[in-house]
Amino acid sequence: MGTSYGLIEIPSTTAAIDVLDIMCKTANVEFVTWEKKLGGRLVTIIVRGTISAVTEAVEAASAHAIKKPVAKAVIANPHEEIVKIVNKSASRLQ
Amino acid sequence: MGTSYGLIEIPSTTAAIDVLDIMCKTANVEFVTWEKKLGGRLVTIIVRGTISAVTEAVEAASAHAIKKPVAKAVIANPHEEIVKIVNKSASRLQ
Amino acid sequence: MGTSYGLIEIPSTTAAIDVLDIMCKTANVEFVTWEKKLGGRLVTIIVRGTISAVTEAVEAASAHAIKKPVAKAVIANPHEEIVKIVNKSASRLQ
Amino acid sequence: MGTSYGLIEIPSTTAAIDVLDIMCKTANVEFVTWEKKLGGRLVTIIVRGTISAVTEAVEAASAHAIKKPVAKAVIANPHEEIVKIVNKSASRLQ
Amino acid sequence: MGTSYGLIEIPSTTAAIDVLDIMCKTANVEFVTWEKKLGGRLVTIIVRGTISAVTEAVEAASAHAIKKPVAKAVIANPHEEIVKIVNKSASRLQ
Amino acid sequence: MGTSYGLIEIPSTTAAIDVLDIMCKTANVEFVTWEKKLGGRLVTIIVRGTISAVTEAVEAASAHAIKKPVAKAVIANPHEEIVKIVNKSASRLQ
Repeated sequence: MGTSYGLIEIPSTTAAIDVLDIMCKTANVEFVTWEKKLGGRLVTIIVRGTISAVTEAVEAASAHAIKKPVAKAVIANPHEEIVKIVNKSASRLQ
Repeated sequence: MGTSYGLIEIPSTTAAIDVLDIMCKTANVEFVTWEKKLGGRLVTIIVRGTISAVTEAVEAASAHAIKKPVAKAVIANPHEEIVKIVNKSASRLQ
Repeated sequence: MGTSYGLIEIPSTTAAIDVLDIMCKTANVEFVTWEKKLGGRLVTIIVRGTISAVTEAVEAASAHAIKKPVAKAVIANPHEEIVKIVNKSASRLQ
Repeated sequence: MGTSYGLIEIPSTTAAIDVLDIMCKTANVEFVTWEKKLGGRLVTIIVRGTISAVTEAVEAASAHAIKKPVAKAVIANPHEEIVKIVNKSASRLQ
Repeated sequence: MGTSYGLIEIPSTTAAIDVLDIMCKTANVEFVTWEKKLGGRLVTIIVRGTISAVTEAVEAASAHAIKKPVAKAVIANPHEEIVKIVNKSASRLQ
Repeated sequence: MGTSYGLIEIPSTTAAIDVLDIMCKTANVEFVTWEKKLGGRLVTIIVRGTISAVTEAVEAASAHAIKKPVAKAVIANPHEEIVKIVNKSASRLQ
């Protein structure tokens, strides 16, 4: 199905929620999970979609976020171990 | 229904509780949730209401808070993924 | 009933326990809850009583604490959303 | 029974365990609880005994600890709210 | 069976997920567990495989990671206590 | 039975796992527990054995660790309160 992941890691919950709103309104991506327990004020947002959609979402988020992201990545064709680890994170959100 | 979210992220629990009191007394907004597990002494308060009410609440909170907020945002017409993530946070408070 | 809240936020568990002892011996206030999960070594103590009692307690705690508080507040006539959030914190202590 | 509390707050788990060993071998005090979730690498050790025993224990711990304590206190004749909060912490250890 | 462990510890969840993707695509290694609760923004990724595979994976991850790792190790022929501690971490992920 | 404890506290999970491997391969010591929830990136490893074995293990770990330990201790003939607190930590690992 060609699913890719887009990741943005940004300080503050407020900036993270704002970034997710930007990503979902900009491109056809789906929210997968967020990770907030790393300390240091960081939140990681993970979305999925086609490689072009997640790239567009990550770029829009970087450009318009209210805080500077500390890390971003687009993972095309993720290894099955990555899919498992992301799905586990998502299942803990339910 | 035109619900918008107002977010304030501020250091210290004391400042966060004080900010929520200011917001609720200033404008017709409803407390939705708070997020406290990010480390770095930050608390995020999320309220909802009309766009004008949450804007007024966020501005009053910024002006009168006992600590300087590190982030604030008004999210008008939030994407459904944002509504879901905020509702999940709220449900963990119950 | 005219309940007000007094809040003191202070670094270290030791200073927080000492501050609570000071507040309860100084004025007719009741311990409500403490919040310790914000990181950054902070503990928030919340007491309740009449506005004059909590003001006296907060002032005595500020004057005699073994550490300098990072935040303090007296919330008179707290909005019902504040009462709910404080009660939820207290119920998690039981 | 005249119970008093002695508190030592010190960076690192290793120093905290060593301090407790010093206190218990020095004076007739009983371990009550420790609090470790404050972040900032701090551990608080609370012991109880007579006022002279806990004072001796806290002084010996301060003098011989492998790290410098960030806070210490002897609480004589603790208010009943303090006894409750300390007992709750101890009950979570069981 | 000659299993060895490869460990990479790196700041940010985004960098950690990216590093795991690199390791799994580079060498024949299997994801075992990650540890994220240490604070300070660090994530530790642990993979297992032959000594040559985990060495190759750790080197590729170090060379291509989007953040600089703060620690890395290859543990050949791990002591049984190490196997037990790693397995316990993995079982908490299930 | 003459059991003593050896403690090493070191930044990073990777360094802690490596240190435990060194200690167990160097001397006849048994892993008891680790404590990782103190924040500040620290992990404490506790092993037990005869006083000479734990001393040898702690010295080897200090000399060969990939990170500098922030604290180390050998507790000979630990007070029964120490044994209880260490056993409680170990029981939470099961």
